[in-house]
Amino acid sequence: MCELLGMSANVPTDICFSFTGLMQRGGRTGPHRDGWGIAFYDGNACRVFHDPAASADSELARLVHRYPIKSRTVLSHIRRATHGRVCLENTHPFVRELWGRMWSFAHNGKLPGVKRLPLGFYRPVGTTDSEHAFCWMLHQIRTVFPRPPARVAPLARLIAVLSDELRALGTFNLLLSDARHLFVYCTTHLCHITRRAPFGEARLEDAEVVVDFARETTENDVVTVVATRPLTTNEAWTPLSTGALEVFSNGLPVWRRGPEANV
Amino acid sequence: MCELLGMSANVPTDICFSFTGLMQRGGRTGPHRDGWGIAFYDGNACRVFHDPAASADSELARLVHRYPIKSRTVLSHIRRATHGRVCLENTHPFVRELWGRMWSFAHNGKLPGVKRLPLGFYRPVGTTDSEHAFCWMLHQIRTVFPRPPARVAPLARLIAVLSDELRALGTFNLLLSDARHLFVYCTTHLCHITRRAPFGEARLEDAEVVVDFARETTENDVVTVVATRPLTTNEAWTPLSTGALEVFSNGLPVWRRGPEANV
Repeated sequence: MCELLGMSANVPTDICFSFTGLMQRGGRTGPHRDGWGIAFYDGNACRVFHDPAASADSELARLVHRYPIKSRTVLSHIRRATHGRVCLENTHPFVRELWGRMWSFAHNGKLPGVKRLPLGFYRPVGTTDSEHAFCWMLHQIRTVFPRPPARVAPLARLIAVLSDELRALGTFNLLLSDARHLFVYCTTHLCHITRRAPFGEARLEDAEVVVDFARETTENDVVTVVATRPLTTNEAWTPLSTGALEVFSNGLPVWRRGPEANV
Repeated sequence: MCELLGMSANVPTDICFSFTGLMQRGGRTGPHRDGWGIAFYDGNACRVFHDPAASADSELARLVHRYPIKSRTVLSHIRRATHGRVCLENTHPFVRELWGRMWSFAHNGKLPGVKRLPLGFYRPVGTTDSEHAFCWMLHQIRTVFPRPPARVAPLARLIAVLSDELRALGTFNLLLSDARHLFVYCTTHLCHITRRAPFGEARLEDAEVVVDFARETTENDVVTVVATRPLTTNEAWTPLSTGALEVFSNGLPVWRRGPEANV
């Protein structure tokens, strides 16, 4: 299984603390030796760093860690290859443009049979199930919404039903962003935490690191972090249920569809 | 004016030496203070590093320089903003997917009126003339070739006539790659050099650096470097003529359309 990490914040925020925890799982405390990637949004564009090497040993990961890029929306993924060889082409997050915005997609889980889903405008560059699912999903979104809808609800509802359809094939834990929102869909393991004033101290599970967010933030900051498993040991993370979709924007939940709506 | 740098090689090669020279022009020996970017191909995917900061002062540029990424096709661009504000969205190279391959595009020059050219599938994320031209060009290519043509000649001919059309609007110096080839189109300033055995020594124009390629290469290596202005002082660079298109693959020229074919 891969590990996912996402962030939504109301001010540009660095993700170094959480990233430090995640990177340890890439070959040190976890079995995820097959590459990693991270996307940092800035406006409608994003910077993406990809490395097919294990994150715990990755020079590029250390560089990203040492050079804090502040962003309001971040997606990251460390991989244990279950489908497709280990190479740059198969390294998440995948990125495509729709509506003049860069969309990014990171997934964990297997989706047997996904390649039978018909593709349209977007074609996979690599050979993973995940990228095929992304290309299919984005074409469906584009077909229904040739232009961006004014409100997030109709878009989120579509992403929920497309995600349900993918979950029916296997396991679909998703982080997706359209540069404005962070869409999070759960099949098996995803949890989130929203940090806001009064900020406290947090202790990483995977490394001997403690951060005092009160020193790093202002009282108006709101930051939500999403991860496959809780990254800290002294905070209460909220698990997502199977079939739930949560949408975050500017650090806060803005739309939710619980598992009761399951197909 | 911006500075372009491209490379095509028959074996994965690092571009550190040429990049060192180029980066100096980003705010030290040149006026290009408005960001830089570089794309390194690996298969059909590419890693792209973008920094809206001046390259000579860029932490990320130093990181790219210290961490040599080997690639067979590289495109780089340092920018002096003439159109569009300085931000990530407006930083070259721009990247889009077509035929399951990542295409990348870096341009220098102004293209007044380019935004009247109709767009199709691809939409600009930022506000530059250049990205509009890329989106237009790629849509035209997609329309003519829904699937990749078996030979490069028909594709190159189309890229040449599309480039002529853009040149008619202003100045169009282009580096473009489809993950297999490096397409180079000249309006005002572009030159290239092909290095192969027996390799000699090269001396950078913009920094006190000399490299002995004989120590860095094997006798089978073939590397072509393309740049806005010669990067070295002791080698003979070949200038491109106005309206010329050169196509490189695996380090060698594979197709050429001279300026005599101008519209």
